[in-house]
Amino acid sequence: MKLYGYWRSSASYRVRIALALKGIEAEHMAVNLVQDAQHSPAHAQRNAQALVPVLELKDGTQLTQSLAIMDYLEQAYPQPALLPDDHVLRAKIRAAAQVITADIAPIQNLRVLKFIRAEHDQDDKGVKAWSAHWIRTGFVSLEKIATESGQPFLFSDQPAYFECCLIPQVYNANRFGVDMSAFPNLSKIEQLAREHPAFIAAHPSQQADALI
Amino acid sequence: MKLYGYWRSSASYRVRIALALKGIEAEHMAVNLVQDAQHSPAHAQRNAQALVPVLELKDGTQLTQSLAIMDYLEQAYPQPALLPDDHVLRAKIRAAAQVITADIAPIQNLRVLKFIRAEHDQDDKGVKAWSAHWIRTGFVSLEKIATESGQPFLFSDQPAYFECCLIPQVYNANRFGVDMSAFPNLSKIEQLAREHPAFIAAHPSQQADALI
Repeated sequence: MKLYGYWRSSASYRVRIALALKGIEAEHMAVNLVQDAQHSPAHAQRNAQALVPVLELKDGTQLTQSLAIMDYLEQAYPQPALLPDDHVLRAKIRAAAQVITADIAPIQNLRVLKFIRAEHDQDDKGVKAWSAHWIRTGFVSLEKIATESGQPFLFSDQPAYFECCLIPQVYNANRFGVDMSAFPNLSKIEQLAREHPAFIAAHPSQQADALI
Repeated sequence: MKLYGYWRSSASYRVRIALALKGIEAEHMAVNLVQDAQHSPAHAQRNAQALVPVLELKDGTQLTQSLAIMDYLEQAYPQPALLPDDHVLRAKIRAAAQVITADIAPIQNLRVLKFIRAEHDQDDKGVKAWSAHWIRTGFVSLEKIATESGQPFLFSDQPAYFECCLIPQVYNANRFGVDMSAFPNLSKIEQLAREHPAFIAAHPSQQADALI
């Protein structure tokens, strides 16, 4: 398997964690977003959206969208499970993950930040305020959900589906200067997950294309 | 069951279609987004995000996020299926749905439009250009995926999971003046789905709170 991604892309980071949690080996193929490599003809062939990540299976099949890839992995490699069997709990965990993957991350994606810079005359400060606003808004609701969970991880004693999404988003929150002390339960989950080998291996700083 | 939603909310519309496709009855509970009813204490109890839809089950359990709700329905009421059994096809359909639910809809959600009006000094024209830009960007990639599918619906001979997301997004595209003739394959899917009883019943104009 090959994972086309970028060290600092939070969607790539999610899939790296999921692969590591399941113990699946994938060759990491760097797509340099800062150099616009996602718009190269080679990458456009892989993903009609010109985004990362893309998971290439052994037979050449290319899968896109981080949650769709995670759900694929969950079906094709069921153990260890990323989602519980209980339908309601599963729906609650999926919903919390989607707060991040739908209602936070895409709004502060690189292409949106480029757009507000170019079309809405936003400077570095405006871009940072925009990103921090949407992260905070999402985290306020997730903090409530984490309080309701009352377990070390979200409705779970092991980091799994939700944590694949949360930890990359906290990484972004730190980049954009969001004060995480306002979110004690999310912070607890993040600190605990940070010690897990799968999360250590998947961290942006551990990737071959990392610039830090 | 009760579905808390709003006639013109595309996320509510998605869940209405899924319920109708599966023949599940749900009482429609209007949350007037224009009057800010999503921020009422009653609705905040239902959804920490203060968004619609919320599906309330018979035992009072409240589920949020349209795709998480659709996945719940798929597990709890497997027939008729919204997703195929094949893992790869399922991943491709999920990914296409997420192009809409993650990479188009949240960026042109009401709260984001309010923000760019207030903080980026955008007028009606700017708001319309913003929405149309993100819809078009997503539809360009979906049009390629639809071409690859070569079936009446996306990788399917029946409207299902993807069409629950596409048809509400086309409804929004029309509101924001996107020229759908640029997307012949998506338009074909939309025109075919429009004749299906589940899509007729779920249309915004058929809801009790509709203002048209």
